Amino acid sequence: MTRPSSVPPPVTAVLDASSRWLPARLGEVEELLREAVASYGETLGGDAGATLAAGGKRLRPMLVLLCAGPERSEGAIRAAAAIELVHMATLVHDDVLDDAPLRRGLPTVFATAGRDRATATGDLLLSRAFALLADAGDARAVALLADASVALARGELAQRRDAFDLGLDRERYLSRCRLKTGRLFECACLLGRDDEALREFGAEIGLAFQLLDDVLDVSGPPERTGKARGTDLLDGTVTLPLIEAAVADPGIREVELQALDPAGAEALCDRIAATGALETVRAQALEMVAAAKRALERAEFEPEQRQLLSLVADGVVQRYS
Amino acid sequence: MTRPSSVPPPVTAVLDASSRWLPARLGEVEELLREAVASYGETLGGDAGATLAAGGKRLRPMLVLLCAGPERSEGAIRAAAAIELVHMATLVHDDVLDDAPLRRGLPTVFATAGRDRATATGDLLLSRAFALLADAGDARAVALLADASVALARGELAQRRDAFDLGLDRERYLSRCRLKTGRLFECACLLGRDDEALREFGAEIGLAFQLLDDVLDVSGPPERTGKARGTDLLDGTVTLPLIEAAVADPGIREVELQALDPAGAEALCDRIAATGALETVRAQALEMVAAAKRALERAEFEPEQRQLLSLVADGVVQRYS
Repeated sequence: MTRPSSVPPPVTAVLDASSRWLPARLGEVEELLREAVASYGETLGGDAGATLAAGGKRLRPMLVLLCAGPERSEGAIRAAAAIELVHMATLVHDDVLDDAPLRRGLPTVFATAGRDRATATGDLLLSRAFALLADAGDARAVALLADASVALARGELAQRRDAFDLGLDRERYLSRCRLKTGRLFECACLLGRDDEALREFGAEIGLAFQLLDDVLDVSGPPERTGKARGTDLLDGTVTLPLIEAAVADPGIREVELQALDPAGAEALCDRIAATGALETVRAQALEMVAAAKRALERAEFEPEQRQLLSLVADGVVQRYS
Repeated sequence: MTRPSSVPPPVTAVLDASSRWLPARLGEVEELLREAVASYGETLGGDAGATLAAGGKRLRPMLVLLCAGPERSEGAIRAAAAIELVHMATLVHDDVLDDAPLRRGLPTVFATAGRDRATATGDLLLSRAFALLADAGDARAVALLADASVALARGELAQRRDAFDLGLDRERYLSRCRLKTGRLFECACLLGRDDEALREFGAEIGLAFQLLDDVLDVSGPPERTGKARGTDLLDGTVTLPLIEAAVADPGIREVELQALDPAGAEALCDRIAATGALETVRAQALEMVAAAKRALERAEFEPEQRQLLSLVADGVVQRYS
């Protein structure tokens, strides 16, 4: 079985439960990704190749493939690679914006190649994603991916606009997460199959994924998340754990986020955790996963497809728990 | 006649020479551009709207429309807007990479909104371009634009990789310019009409355009270019005027580009100009324009279309001369 490198446990569960087709198909996606970044000379080959080799969960490609089902489809494989390229592009740009030295415990493109080359590398990955779909003449897929990319950038803008704003409320937080994370998960499902139930499934697990990500930023541990606790706080990114914690402990709203240093951020993480906010947010994420599974019931599927998608849904909230 | 704002003289010449259809069509492109950036709330509306309002020559949209010809086509108008969005996206990102305070004499998005929002704004403009074409189901146009965007990012990467390298030769410089500038001009022509002669026309004038841009960086004057002389030199961007000047005055290769301050950059501009390199490069640009016009002769056209495209070709090298 061909498997992407550094596969985390929940994804392994999906692969183990699947019959041969999914791992084989994911292997083809990896091959396409390698070709997509290898064809541009040593600089990109180096910069983007490192991003590629750093692995990642390949959750979005897996969603495309699972929603498309076991019928062989070049289109689904290409779409799976394209959506991962868009995701990689945003990671590379995010790391530039956050001056992030590490991602998944490895040096970022920003750290190794500098701000300039990392920005250009992100642009290239984004354009490459569209080229991959467009060269195959798949207009529906391009439209889906373009709309999701627009949403992603809007979410990114919203996050930067709301930075350091401790008055941010739950609704605004959720709407940003829908743009920044949910829409690409939705898009992955719709790239696999045009089905309203799958769109809803993708939107719910995308949101759950982001909520858990935000919990992990507070809970760590760093040796598992690959980054220091409180990284979001240091960037001024106000997330749901902070918003929920401030309900129980209103003094949190008085903290000067701009003045935080890494030790202060860790202390604020402890203060947030002490309110029980992490459990509250985790429970909300679990409720979203349950809603996702209800949506799944409405889609017509091979039993194996439903079972595997259900495992993916569990996987997004089982990380490091 | 509806006209884009701040139209420079050579473009005015084209508009004046054209019958009513071109200005009217350009007005529709402006309308589409305004809609494309206005539909994303106040933050983008502000940031990207400022980029839009800063105007620019709208050369690429004009090429799309002129190559498409006077037959009414929604596709050409959409493609013209999309290519300008890609161009705007690269300008916004370039300004971030260059820490540029001004563009066309106005504050950049980077200067007014900061690095983070400017990067996200660029991503959004790029994605929006693809969404505009893809939503209309125009797979050929998306493929053309995606490939050109990939080339653009590769050119940007090449420029960053070669920064401060005074050993850069003419061939490598030209190949970077083809990627960074030529391919988008090519794409503009091909978006208008699928014709090898037009592709060649676009490639040649794109290259000529870049050569002249690089001459203007050395020659100024700042009150016409809207930026200080020697900006490229300060960024470490080695251009043809410098390469040609070093042939006559090899001591130029010993200059420490990293150590230049604005006054030093201006002095180096004078030293480059003193070698006659600017005239050499301008002559090369004129030769490219002549080659572009020869290609134009091979395309089948309404006489007015050929005349107007010929005027555009002249325009790219007549700026501030």
